[in-house]
Amino acid sequence: MTKFDEATQAIKIDDQTYDVCLDPGYSIGGPLNGGYLVAVLLRAAVDAAPFAHPVSTSAQFLKAPVPGPARVRVEPLKAGRTAAFSRATLIQDGAAAIEALVTTATLAEAEPDYSGEAPDMPPIEQCAKLPDPKPESNMTLNAQMELCFDPPTIGWLHGRPTGRPESRAYFRMSEEQDPDAYVLALAVDALPPVVFSAGRRGWAPTVDLTWNLRALPAPGWLTLAGSGRLISGGWFDEEVEVWDSVGRLVAQSRQLARVGRG
Amino acid sequence: MTKFDEATQAIKIDDQTYDVCLDPGYSIGGPLNGGYLVAVLLRAAVDAAPFAHPVSTSAQFLKAPVPGPARVRVEPLKAGRTAAFSRATLIQDGAAAIEALVTTATLAEAEPDYSGEAPDMPPIEQCAKLPDPKPESNMTLNAQMELCFDPPTIGWLHGRPTGRPESRAYFRMSEEQDPDAYVLALAVDALPPVVFSAGRRGWAPTVDLTWNLRALPAPGWLTLAGSGRLISGGWFDEEVEVWDSVGRLVAQSRQLARVGRG
Repeated sequence: MTKFDEATQAIKIDDQTYDVCLDPGYSIGGPLNGGYLVAVLLRAAVDAAPFAHPVSTSAQFLKAPVPGPARVRVEPLKAGRTAAFSRATLIQDGAAAIEALVTTATLAEAEPDYSGEAPDMPPIEQCAKLPDPKPESNMTLNAQMELCFDPPTIGWLHGRPTGRPESRAYFRMSEEQDPDAYVLALAVDALPPVVFSAGRRGWAPTVDLTWNLRALPAPGWLTLAGSGRLISGGWFDEEVEVWDSVGRLVAQSRQLARVGRG
Repeated sequence: MTKFDEATQAIKIDDQTYDVCLDPGYSIGGPLNGGYLVAVLLRAAVDAAPFAHPVSTSAQFLKAPVPGPARVRVEPLKAGRTAAFSRATLIQDGAAAIEALVTTATLAEAEPDYSGEAPDMPPIEQCAKLPDPKPESNMTLNAQMELCFDPPTIGWLHGRPTGRPESRAYFRMSEEQDPDAYVLALAVDALPPVVFSAGRRGWAPTVDLTWNLRALPAPGWLTLAGSGRLISGGWFDEEVEVWDSVGRLVAQSRQLARVGRG
């Protein structure tokens, strides 16, 4: 079992209740990464579902949980022939931290009938890493994954934002692990906020996030392509597409978040 | 009160319960339009919320309700300073038809800090309407709204699909009505399925849909730009952007749906 599998483990207590332990290794400067928390919640929701693949997950971020024990409560809503629906709640100290709707189905191995184009990325050797975070920053998430960025999209690091909300990077877990639905749940929220590239730095809390699993990823590097359409009145959207190593679109997400101050 | 306002009315029974009456005028050949149903559910959810604007709504379509009485049950989950979260369920004959998570907030009138580009549309005089549906088809929705299409995106009507999932049209209600959040809930699901343009006709049921209200629309025509990224294994995604008459992005949606057979 990899460290990530262990950090997202959900232990069944009864048909609707799972115990989890939130790992301090997924911190983004205090709060835990939202994608990591969704991965934990999905471990329970998928275990309780009649189908194996979480094709759609919509999550509201109510309260930032802290590392340590928590629970996931899963409530089945409806199971049909092709899809099943459930509600899942991540609860800590009696308070809901994440409320989610999860739709599961079976994704077959299939050649796409139609696919949009993969993002244009430079070869990985020409991509750039973020500097290691300072230990006191408590950015423990960074050590769990490797991100190699399309250089202009981290120009903001050196005072040269592109002026557009965007972020593109190759992604894999630091520990050898084939990507799966849970890794993808982490991946769709793994990029620095796309608004950094539009010159808006600072803590950018996710309000809600929906992501769709579109195909089961092949082993190897993933490519994450993040963008946004509107920054207005303190709100922004962030869309992330995840492509696998054989060039298939495997996940799509959109989150609505607040623009950071400072 | 317009016919649409009446058809989406929610009458408060108690803090968490609203009576609604689903209108047969929003049928798409039998089932009621999903966007219409979400608009009904939002009337109740927003009335029960501390903020006026439904900035994010994620809905799972569990069961197709029929015209006639139904209920919306709203459960507040958390209210913070900038956003409030609730669960809302549309229930008919004791069974949940739609399960939703609704996030409300206050959208200020603001100039965007950044905006993507509006879709490229021909002038409205050069756009084309769909033929009137046959009375026996029970497509009553069409009479509620005016849609003027970018002609190539309805080439599928005459055996000339573009080969890509896309659909673009000007939209307004047939009865004079300024667009608001409820009209937008209808608008994001008002286009023919984008897969028609990729040569995949037939009934394309929505499995789930998330939409974001990004700004309050100005009076006048809306522009709907629909597209998709992947059609694979019987599933497709449909993204719709809604732009208002002064060129602002006012709504964004994504739905996951099944490809029709036949």
